[in-house]
Amino acid sequence: MLTSQRIDTNSLFLTDQLNSLGVEVRRKLIVGDDRAVLTAAIRQALAQAEIVILTGGLGPTEDDLTREAAAEALERALVFRQDLCDAIEERFRRRQRKMAENNKRQAYVVEGAEVIANPNGTAVGQWIETGERVVMLLPGPPGELKPMFAGECVARLAKKLPAQVIRTRFYRVTGMTESDLDHLISPVYTKYTNPTTTILASPGDIQVHLRARAASEAEAERLLAEAGDPIQELLGDRIFSCNGDSLEAVIGAMLRERGATVAVAESCTGGMVAERLTAVAGSSDYFLGGFVVYSNGMKEQALGVDPELIARHTAVSGEVAEAMAAQARARTGADYAVSTTGEAGPKTRTGAPPGTVFVGLAGPEGPPESRRFNLPGDRTRVRMFATQAALDMLRRKLAKAGR
Amino acid sequence: MLTSQRIDTNSLFLTDQLNSLGVEVRRKLIVGDDRAVLTAAIRQALAQAEIVILTGGLGPTEDDLTREAAAEALERALVFRQDLCDAIEERFRRRQRKMAENNKRQAYVVEGAEVIANPNGTAVGQWIETGERVVMLLPGPPGELKPMFAGECVARLAKKLPAQVIRTRFYRVTGMTESDLDHLISPVYTKYTNPTTTILASPGDIQVHLRARAASEAEAERLLAEAGDPIQELLGDRIFSCNGDSLEAVIGAMLRERGATVAVAESCTGGMVAERLTAVAGSSDYFLGGFVVYSNGMKEQALGVDPELIARHTAVSGEVAEAMAAQARARTGADYAVSTTGEAGPKTRTGAPPGTVFVGLAGPEGPPESRRFNLPGDRTRVRMFATQAALDMLRRKLAKAGR
Repeated sequence: MLTSQRIDTNSLFLTDQLNSLGVEVRRKLIVGDDRAVLTAAIRQALAQAEIVILTGGLGPTEDDLTREAAAEALERALVFRQDLCDAIEERFRRRQRKMAENNKRQAYVVEGAEVIANPNGTAVGQWIETGERVVMLLPGPPGELKPMFAGECVARLAKKLPAQVIRTRFYRVTGMTESDLDHLISPVYTKYTNPTTTILASPGDIQVHLRARAASEAEAERLLAEAGDPIQELLGDRIFSCNGDSLEAVIGAMLRERGATVAVAESCTGGMVAERLTAVAGSSDYFLGGFVVYSNGMKEQALGVDPELIARHTAVSGEVAEAMAAQARARTGADYAVSTTGEAGPKTRTGAPPGTVFVGLAGPEGPPESRRFNLPGDRTRVRMFATQAALDMLRRKLAKAGR
Repeated sequence: MLTSQRIDTNSLFLTDQLNSLGVEVRRKLIVGDDRAVLTAAIRQALAQAEIVILTGGLGPTEDDLTREAAAEALERALVFRQDLCDAIEERFRRRQRKMAENNKRQAYVVEGAEVIANPNGTAVGQWIETGERVVMLLPGPPGELKPMFAGECVARLAKKLPAQVIRTRFYRVTGMTESDLDHLISPVYTKYTNPTTTILASPGDIQVHLRARAASEAEAERLLAEAGDPIQELLGDRIFSCNGDSLEAVIGAMLRERGATVAVAESCTGGMVAERLTAVAGSSDYFLGGFVVYSNGMKEQALGVDPELIARHTAVSGEVAEAMAAQARARTGADYAVSTTGEAGPKTRTGAPPGTVFVGLAGPEGPPESRRFNLPGDRTRVRMFATQAALDMLRRKLAKAGR
């Protein structure tokens, strides 16, 4: 796990499972296959946490040292278990293969450990209690660790933990920066340590998580409402999802509810808006199609935008964005059409600075409209922000249109 | 990073970059936003390593504590820098926005730190030398961290490291599975420990890295050639890039060289092919535009595909893929046009099983052609594979057409 190739998914899985039990993850440490380093790390973890989970290093090779290091840190012996050795041998025999001598290493357990069977591999798990603390040794391969933890360890842990209920709220927000959002809601969330508030930001998409713990469900919900209701009120219609759904999924559900269809006409986003709308399974029910009109010629010929309009206002203008949306709507027969035109950078063709983007929107109610955005960052970020801005304008339009 | 949602990619990137410099990663630690815990972790890291890289926690909010913790661990003061504050304010002003008061936190640096500019965000990096040790404070968002590290930190680090030559080769391959590739080239690469060979796979895109270390450049190149030449020969024209360029960038360069243009017509990929072609800066020189034709109606009206052809063969057929490409080429005047039509799943509309995709290609030489693919995985993977397959068919066509 110290190489550049291995993505750590085990710890995400374990965190999710532990959080559900009301256990907070304080520390994740990744160290190499060095026995002294491992032993010191386990000792330190035991001094700081009530639950220590060690994953990996239970294989048959010389650099699988977790058993030895755990035993040393706990000041216990390693015990050879003939029954485990027999089981490993039997596992090899069933596959018509001979057990290698080094597989015997996997038959050693820390003195006093409870063995957890591993139906998916030769490395058994070990559950060790020491005073108030629990140490688990779990195999590293996700296909072995995950079923073992979910199937065996969760139930054992639940028995040792105080009865506690965890309830969460989740807001996905767009149309403001992380620092503006923090400025707006920190006066509320800093008043509370329960629920805890976490803010995660990616371009044009901020997630606010609230997590409350209490002895009862009613109490947890009361705590959530106390901090969450004012936050929800402050964020208002910038919240596009309360359940984690993506913006394109939210729009899809709105279109489906209204029996409406959509089309797109994209210049600077180059297909990204269509790509996101069609990423949702079943989007063919409401997405008709789109035009990626990168050149002025394409805007005129494929979409039918008036060349004079482009000559007068340049392709990067509210007027052209509106015409693109109106034409996409007319040419496809969709109820709504959204368009983008702008300078993604680094070079600009119209003289407008990179990051200048116009989003156009046409629908059954009223004339086409457009909005200008000055978006930060490089080409990739401008395209991502512009796509998000276009989808959010559509969402707001649909919300206003009602069901 | 202690939640169950965030995948750690920064540390993989940093590990790769550090390894290339001959630096080994000994320890990765993830801790929460707690100042005392952070400070202790930094102190401990300083006692164990010569290079300590801290990522994240440089934002404007109350729980961004890396600056404070680093200063405390290093026993240095935090200094307010008016010039940094002005730069942040200016950044906001350029976007017609007002800097929030809490952004001033980002203008503090550890005493004696060299500031590393961040063109992609408000958090500057900090490079701190203390005796033989280096501490770096880098912003957490990958879009800010990666260019900063590659652009600024690598060169600074290289100056401090002992002379050792690292030379690499890099092949990007498409059109075969990871296990087929491994089966093909493992008889070669397993013979060598220097260079080391690493294989990374994502849908339709496998990267083979070779890394040789030696005392001289000539020796490193000799080692690379010994292992790399036979691998290159075995992979042949499945290699689309030897310098890390993306498939869309390779195609862009080929089109530019030939003075040729391209258009797309997409059904199942929903805009992804256009999105990737236009992700390349300057793509407006050769990308004319595209049609996202999700419904049969759109295929007929926007693109002019013969309805009878669809009725006879269904929309998911080689005939329709060829017609889509031919029509996209005719309607845009592009030299080449590539099309996709298929079942991305989970539901299918034509009876063809999910994963069935036809790619069509039209160009100045000969009649339109098409190829059928049976692609594995869920909706997202099928769309990614289909996009890759379409781009690769275009690359091969351009390669045959010559310059």
